[in-house]
Formats: sequence, C-alpha cells, structure tokens
Amino acid sequence: MAKDSDTVAQAKKVPIEPTHFSYTERDVIIYNLGIGATEKDLQWTYEGDDEFSALPTFGVVPQFMASSTLPLDSWLPDFNPAKLLHGEQFLSIKAPIPTSGELVNNARLFEILDKGKAAAVTSIVETRDKSGTLIFENHSTVFIRGSGGFGGARVGSDRGPATAVNAVPKRAPDAVVEEKTSSSQAALYRMSGDVNPLHILPEFAAIGGFDKPILHGLCSMGISGKHVFQKFGPYKDIKVRFAGVVYPGETLVTEMWKEGPSVIFTTKVKERDTLVLASAAATLVDGATKARL
Amino acid sequence: MAKDSDTVAQAKKVPIEPTHFSYTERDVIIYNLGIGATEKDLQWTYEGDDEFSALPTFGVVPQFMASSTLPLDSWLPDFNPAKLLHGEQFLSIKAPIPTSGELVNNARLFEILDKGKAAAVTSIVETRDKSGTLIFENHSTVFIRGSGGFGGARVGSDRGPATAVNAVPKRAPDAVVEEKTSSSQAALYRMSGDVNPLHILPEFAAIGGFDKPILHGLCSMGISGKHVFQKFGPYKDIKVRFAGVVYPGETLVTEMWKEGPSVIFTTKVKERDTLVLASAAATLVDGATKARL
Repeated sequence: MAKDSDTVAQAKKVPIEPTHFSYTERDVIIYNLGIGATEKDLQWTYEGDDEFSALPTFGVVPQFMASSTLPLDSWLPDFNPAKLLHGEQFLSIKAPIPTSGELVNNARLFEILDKGKAAAVTSIVETRDKSGTLIFENHSTVFIRGSGGFGGARVGSDRGPATAVNAVPKRAPDAVVEEKTSSSQAALYRMSGDVNPLHILPEFAAIGGFDKPILHGLCSMGISGKHVFQKFGPYKDIKVRFAGVVYPGETLVTEMWKEGPSVIFTTKVKERDTLVLASAAATLVDGATKARL
Repeated sequence: MAKDSDTVAQAKKVPIEPTHFSYTERDVIIYNLGIGATEKDLQWTYEGDDEFSALPTFGVVPQFMASSTLPLDSWLPDFNPAKLLHGEQFLSIKAPIPTSGELVNNARLFEILDKGKAAAVTSIVETRDKSGTLIFENHSTVFIRGSGGFGGARVGSDRGPATAVNAVPKRAPDAVVEEKTSSSQAALYRMSGDVNPLHILPEFAAIGGFDKPILHGLCSMGISGKHVFQKFGPYKDIKVRFAGVVYPGETLVTEMWKEGPSVIFTTKVKERDTLVLASAAATLVDGATKARL
C-alpha cells in the first residue's frame, strides 16, 4: 500500500477541527491517582489542600482525544488499532496548569515515517485556555505495526525536541525511585481518557500480540514523571521513548541523573529487568535545579 | 439546646428542593473501582463488556448530595460536621440501574431522635429517572455526636425497614469473602461524591476523634454488598448498620448466611477483629435465591 511523500503532504493539509476538553478538580485527582499518587500526597489527591495541583504530566490528558482521533485510518489504509503502539511523547508545559477549566486543542500532523514493518506517525497538539494562552504543547509519535513499507520519504524538516537523544551518563544515578503499580492501575488510568481496550480486555491485547493487557505508556510516563518531580521539583518539559511494555502490577524503577538544567532518566520493570522508558529527560524550571535528594 | 417534637415536626415541613445527578459510564466504573472491583471484573470496569453494569450499591451515589446537604445545621444548632458519623443505610433498588443518565432526587426528613450524647437524623431520598420511574429509595441515618440531649420525643411512627434487626444465625456462615482494601481506597471512593475531609485529611480526622482518616461507611457497605452479589447474585435491597470504623488498607471479612429470600451478613476488620457492619441484610431478587458458592 504505497504512501508517498505527496500523499503525506496532502494529509498534513487536511484541516483538523479543534477539540474541547472540560475538566474539574475531580478529574485532576483521578489522573493523579491513576499515576500512583496516594492518600499521603494530599497536594495531589485532596482538592482542599493549599498546594492542590495536577501532576505535570496531566498535560497529556486534555490533548489525548485530539491526538488519538487523528484520521489514521485514512492515512494508513492497513490501519489496525490493535497494532498501534505509542512510540514517543514530548510534553512542554507553557503555563501553570489550571486545576479545572475548559481547554481547546489544535492538532496537526507533523510527519509519517516509514519504519519498515511499521509506520511512525507524529502529531503535534497545542492546548490553550479560553483566553488563548498556550498551556501545553504535545508531540506524540505512534507506531502502527503492519502499516510500514510504503516507501514514503521522511516528511518534516525539523524533528523537534521529541526525538532529541538523551544519553544516560556513565555514573551511578543521582536518584532512584521504585514504585509497584497496582494490578488495577490500567483500569484506573483509563478513567483519564484513553479507553483503548488494549489496556483492559485480554482478547484485544492478544490481537495486539500481548499475553495480557498492558499498562498505558502515558501512565508509565506519568509515574516516572512523578518520581522526577518528587526528587528534583517542577519541570517545564518532559519526553520519553516507550521502549517496552509494562503489565499492571509490575514494579517501575526510575533512575535519574541531573545534567545541567535537565534530569535524564530511564525506567525499568524490576521483575523482568526490562527497559520501558528510554531516551527520557525533563528540563527543570529555573530555580528548581537543585536536587531534593 | 432544646429541640422538642414541635421543632422537629416543623423541620419536616420545610420543602427540600430536588437535586439532579448526571452520570456517565465512567462514573459507574469509578464507583465500582472505589469499592474494590478490579481489572478482572470486566462487567464492572470495562464499559464495552456485554454485561457492563453498576454494582447494586451504586444506588447510594446519585442521592448522596441530596441526603448529605440536608440543613442539619439549622435543625441541630450544635452541629459539627467533624462529629457526624453515618449510622445506618438502607437502599432499595426499584428498577434496573441505568449505566448513565440523569436522575432526580427528592429528599425528606424522616425523624430526629435524641440518642443521649448524639442526635440521630434519618432522611429518605427517592431517586427517579427523567420519566419519573422510581429507581432507588434510600434511608440514611446519621449520628451527630454532641448534638443529643435535647429531650426531643421520637418523631415518626414507622421506623421503616432501615431499622429492621437482622439476627445472625447461630450456624457457621454459608459464605465468607475476605478483601484487603487499598491504603488509597478512601481517596478513590471520594471521587464518587462524598468528599468529606474526614476520609482523607489527618487533621480533620483528629477533630473527629480518629487516629487517621477513616474509610467511608458507604464504601465498606459497597465492598460487602459486592461480596453478597458475588456469592448470591442480585438483590433488591440492602441495609447495614455502621458499627465500627475501617481504616483504609485494612482487610474486610464479610460473613454471609442465606435465610429464606435474604442474605444476612456481618463485616469485620480482620486485623482488629472488630465488627464494622452489623444488622445487615440483603433481599435477593426472585430467581436469585440459590447460592452461587
């Protein structure tokens, strides 16, 4: 199924309607709980706390439907949602995160790359508040297995920060956080908007080639993003490459290295000693560059 | 602070505005997760399941704000919300539970009893769908510690089913289910509408006289109600007396006895061997009277 550069260029011109996302403090707490915040973390689970806030990676939530409902089936004729895997995510936090409100997402196709067996589709979503202030910018790359081999050239002259390589320093990590996920982690994380059955329905996971439902990549990103926040404070952007799957109930180990204004990190599944988040980094906000170890 | 029968009779005449409750399948899943349904229970946690449904005790959710926002402070001048404890709950399920929709609650004061140190306030809420079909009837009794001693006579000639005594048979239980709650159980259950800080804020729990935040009584009721459903099938009503508190993370043990069309049950905290739900029973729907042991 050929898809040349012209076809991709055409796809990029198709206007995508803005999507709206309304949320309340309850939705913020449900997200925070979904990435493992607990009753001990009152700033994340109790709306009455003086410092009540969304965890930074909440920024992927308002745009999720916008990036996930791009017309992949029209761009990739062999598209099978069970064959979709999240490849990379870059989130830039442009302004303080409201704990409730209504946001507007503008999504656009950035590029479709032929990765051989898979197609890699990168979209960019800008999320603004009603006044037009930019709150989040997300770059999402999904791999569609079975949709590659179309011979398309690389489209898009600037890969942007989502593909920056974050080499892990050779020294021991500056901080390590270990967190066991719950066997219901994906069932709860789904409540923040990604209801792909891949994350709860065994039959569907089997179609995707998995022994059982897998945790959302963005949930793992959120958990490790929480670890970065807990150890180093707030950050203004975070990116990860999804290198392996996590099964709900497994233990995530986030290893972190402070490098200038950045925290480079990787995440492994302890039980299988498998890398799940790679080439990952967060850029700390000014004044938050001191480790809180 | 005297409150005689006439005062109570007056209070009963104050019209209470109907309250509305809109909900989606997501809210049903959040409730089900809040009472311990897991990713294994697809009928309760996956909206795409052919048998997707609310657990029966969801019936306490739509009416919660209606019964909890009764003007207790005007009826009980010494009212202190930190001194409020849920005493009893009776839920009657009058029609199949919609998995989404908009419901209307009509609440009324049933009685205020002087229990010596505490006042016992019982309200009744009828919950209907938009067509007027009765879906749920709830009777809630709350104890307000420190608000008793007003010398008021008993008001209300019919105590109703909420106070029926369900004596436990002398034989060994017909079924026992043990379930460990999560330390975040209350933080998650709060997302179904009861955001009383008593269940998450240590300082507030201390004002109420507790070492730490306690689990919602209605959450314990939901967990045990789930056990009854799992062992005996659907029921048309359920009532419990809240006999003791549960701390999130503790293990609930539900002991059940099949008696005619009813399942009598009690619930204990395993770690402290303490009764937490007493005088409890559910009436099975016709055709569901065979134990599924």
